[in-house]
Amino acid sequence: MRRLNVELADRGYEILIGCDLINRPELITAELPTPRVALVTNATVAPLYGDAMQSGLQASGVGVTTIVLPDGEAYKTWESLNLIFDALLAARCDRTTTIIALGGGVVGDLAGFAAATYQRGIPFIQIPTTLLSQVDSSVGGKTGINHPRGKNMVGAFWQPRLVLADIGTLQTLPARELSAGMAEVIKYGLIRDLPFLEWLEANMEGLMARDGELLALAVERSCANKAAVVAADEYETAKEGGRALLNLGHTFGHAIETGMGYGEWLHGEAVAAGMVMAAELSRRLGWIAQADVERITSLLRRANLPVSGAPLGPARYLELMSHDKKVVGGRLRLVLLKRLGEAVTYAESPAEEIAAAIEACCLA
Amino acid sequence: MRRLNVELADRGYEILIGCDLINRPELITAELPTPRVALVTNATVAPLYGDAMQSGLQASGVGVTTIVLPDGEAYKTWESLNLIFDALLAARCDRTTTIIALGGGVVGDLAGFAAATYQRGIPFIQIPTTLLSQVDSSVGGKTGINHPRGKNMVGAFWQPRLVLADIGTLQTLPARELSAGMAEVIKYGLIRDLPFLEWLEANMEGLMARDGELLALAVERSCANKAAVVAADEYETAKEGGRALLNLGHTFGHAIETGMGYGEWLHGEAVAAGMVMAAELSRRLGWIAQADVERITSLLRRANLPVSGAPLGPARYLELMSHDKKVVGGRLRLVLLKRLGEAVTYAESPAEEIAAAIEACCLA
Repeated sequence: MRRLNVELADRGYEILIGCDLINRPELITAELPTPRVALVTNATVAPLYGDAMQSGLQASGVGVTTIVLPDGEAYKTWESLNLIFDALLAARCDRTTTIIALGGGVVGDLAGFAAATYQRGIPFIQIPTTLLSQVDSSVGGKTGINHPRGKNMVGAFWQPRLVLADIGTLQTLPARELSAGMAEVIKYGLIRDLPFLEWLEANMEGLMARDGELLALAVERSCANKAAVVAADEYETAKEGGRALLNLGHTFGHAIETGMGYGEWLHGEAVAAGMVMAAELSRRLGWIAQADVERITSLLRRANLPVSGAPLGPARYLELMSHDKKVVGGRLRLVLLKRLGEAVTYAESPAEEIAAAIEACCLA
Repeated sequence: MRRLNVELADRGYEILIGCDLINRPELITAELPTPRVALVTNATVAPLYGDAMQSGLQASGVGVTTIVLPDGEAYKTWESLNLIFDALLAARCDRTTTIIALGGGVVGDLAGFAAATYQRGIPFIQIPTTLLSQVDSSVGGKTGINHPRGKNMVGAFWQPRLVLADIGTLQTLPARELSAGMAEVIKYGLIRDLPFLEWLEANMEGLMARDGELLALAVERSCANKAAVVAADEYETAKEGGRALLNLGHTFGHAIETGMGYGEWLHGEAVAAGMVMAAELSRRLGWIAQADVERITSLLRRANLPVSGAPLGPARYLELMSHDKKVVGGRLRLVLLKRLGEAVTYAESPAEEIAAAIEACCLA
């Protein structure tokens, strides 16, 4: 089992990475203020891991209220959040109850936002069961729900007390979701870790074949990169760089997700296409070479990821991107690549260059 | 104008107390990161003060989106919160937009929770226009909404950047609401400030006649007491005492409010009756004398406040109280009086003594 510390001003926590962690309730009980948890999961994950976890915790003397949500980004809504509140109140959960999120990013974001706001905040543990949530959404404390007018528009920062990344759960993950998670893994190499990018180029086939040791290494290195960024800028208040760098490809990607309707593209797929757009714009600004863009698209393709965006047209992209949270004081601040392994935030891109980069990277 | 500093670990802020502060937009503009605000108010306050405020801010070069909610505790719901989110998104408010709450506690709690959760948190300014919100809800950072199963069950801690307590707005306050606010003012004397309690006994008639100078003094002293308590225990994590002491009468009071349906009793009215119950229980535990209880009921009566609870029956009270957030690990932790001017948290009250105290203080 690998251990990684996330150092935060307010309160640090540990990420444990390894196989079969889900069947070790003692890792969880060590973190509970009282032996009482609400286990939030979804209809897909519950039969795979939820029932076993509930039994294991109960056998350790923990009272468990299990809350099963419908599966999918379309359910990352107030209605699902309210299902959690209803269940917590019906079970008379108090401020010492710990919420455990068992599932992917949607479950983590919903359960985390419930933990942030139930009785103004209760303890929270993350058990991410997808590659995407293991390397991205389970580190950093972002929680929230979608709004009909935009993704993640309502939420809070709320840090978990513990993250268990059980690599074994990745064996049951649909192939498309494995790829989507790999987009965020590749992102860490692109924004701040060239040696990791090179390691990924050397090992992508093994990773896609779900070699457990390689996956554990990739998750640990990704989390270490994310944790370092988050520790330096917990509330995303840095004017330049900082946590915003984690959004490489995300502003373009959110436009694809919103424009196509949530769920049509997976988040990681949209981010992959968005990273190509960001790379293309960086090339047009003279920062990286055509060969660098091709190196990125090649690696994404080997992870079975899309390297072109949905054909919404540049005008619609720009319209959707202007709604993004990364707009600060009316300026569109994008994350771009100074070189491979070094991202920057940049608010001076000419609109016509952004449009041209989108056009160049859209499906015909 | 009086100034009071609220010292907090994370970030302190100022409370400004005086007359006609609402017509001094420069007090607000000094705190804005960008000249863009969302002014959240209600249908009662908007015609009295909202329009003038909007004009004043606009004349100072500030872009204003005004959001008018229906008035009343019954509207402290997710639906009202969503009206705020809809308006913020329609107006393309970004993370630098400041939410201003202009109104009583309901507006403050709703607007504050919107500020805490819109795009994971944006700046917030409180302009409380009721006595209750000036002395209580605008200090301390508690925000939230009600749930059908309980009051304030969903919320967050979110500190304002500035509080403007304009004493002039108290001249238009309905008499019943002035009294309700006075319940919380008296509470500060009871829990930690005997000299203030004596000052209130000497000046209650002048306060109820809305003498501006007396009201300003009472608001300042109340806020100073609350600020001192909050500063020592920002997130209500103290095991004993701390912020919980501010809840004198509140656990009993919440039972009245919930049992009678929100809005039947005003919060301050329920707290007044609840404080009498807490005093009666303290007497039964041998901590204070019958004469102390009578001194409390006498002062509350002079503020035109109820000193008996709604006739729900002790069993129903206990049932409702067991849902309260002040339940920790299954034990009902009440705030009681060791003596006048000194409150304590106490989890060892025998259930039959609690029931007897309720019985003794209920309307026939």
